[in-house]
Amino acid sequence: MVPPSDVHRHMGCLLSSGQEADVTFHVGEDTVAAHRLILGARSSVFMAELFGPMKEKDASHIQIHDMEPRVFKAMIHFMYNDTLPPEMDKGEDAFFMAQHLLFAADRYDLQRLKLICEDKLCNFISTSTAATTLALAEQHGCKGLKEACFKFLRSPGNLKTIMDSDGFRHLTSSCPSLLSELLANVAP
Amino acid sequence: MVPPSDVHRHMGCLLSSGQEADVTFHVGEDTVAAHRLILGARSSVFMAELFGPMKEKDASHIQIHDMEPRVFKAMIHFMYNDTLPPEMDKGEDAFFMAQHLLFAADRYDLQRLKLICEDKLCNFISTSTAATTLALAEQHGCKGLKEACFKFLRSPGNLKTIMDSDGFRHLTSSCPSLLSELLANVAP
Repeated sequence: MVPPSDVHRHMGCLLSSGQEADVTFHVGEDTVAAHRLILGARSSVFMAELFGPMKEKDASHIQIHDMEPRVFKAMIHFMYNDTLPPEMDKGEDAFFMAQHLLFAADRYDLQRLKLICEDKLCNFISTSTAATTLALAEQHGCKGLKEACFKFLRSPGNLKTIMDSDGFRHLTSSCPSLLSELLANVAP
Repeated sequence: MVPPSDVHRHMGCLLSSGQEADVTFHVGEDTVAAHRLILGARSSVFMAELFGPMKEKDASHIQIHDMEPRVFKAMIHFMYNDTLPPEMDKGEDAFFMAQHLLFAADRYDLQRLKLICEDKLCNFISTSTAATTLALAEQHGCKGLKEACFKFLRSPGNLKTIMDSDGFRHLTSSCPSLLSELLANVAP
């Protein structure tokens, strides 16, 4: 009996042990030790930031400004283990994490993580989330997620219910071009 | 649709591009450029040889003496991609490669590769290979492969056919202790 692939398990051990780590990220109050080679192999953005001609002067200490520590940590966990931390799918946090990880995945060009987040967000579509999810899908070019939102809004009553919400007002102001597309999609 | 894991694809690209490689192996006439971090993460033997207190003085150039270049290259390919090179299973070479990769996997503590080689060698068991395969299984502690050889030799006529071969004479001289185990296994 040949056991399944174990590359991600070995990479996961490398991350959790911190052995031979050569870069430290400072995210809020937290620090994350990682390996430039692994990050570069997994993300073209990290490859450019850590090894490219435009790399930061001190590539061993990097400040992350636009991300919550738990989101950044979950993304790094994913880059090594190819799975998200198990605690991520539990509780009220799951929707927040899926939204923020989608942003992170797009920022660092992690296509598989982006699709995983899209998939999770599809399962969260409701009258209270559809507007913000649609705006997010538009901003990050998520075709499947956008289509899932349109499908939800085609169901009788759903669009009417959300049209008076803050989320919808945010959608109309942040993505005005989306309105005609929405109209075309819900037109009887 | 979320695509399958792509860690090994990313690692494979790292190997084939040679980007950021920091160790060169010299094997026969060939050289292989690789990454110490990946090798160490995948193999405890490489971890000790490349990072441990007993590491070689010049850990960026390492001579490999006891292995054919194509075997060493296939092993390195496996360490990154978690699969063997596709050409390995073709032609008469397949049995040779499975034998030598088993040796390599045992040498560098690559348990999954070892089991893959055992599995391949099981499919090659015949009257012309059983003796050498049994000796190999004994030398490298391959329980499953050894049992498969015993099973083959229990079939009427098989043991009698091989007893006059060079392979069997080599088996009796290299692993004399195996004879009583063989006897116990084929006893009617």
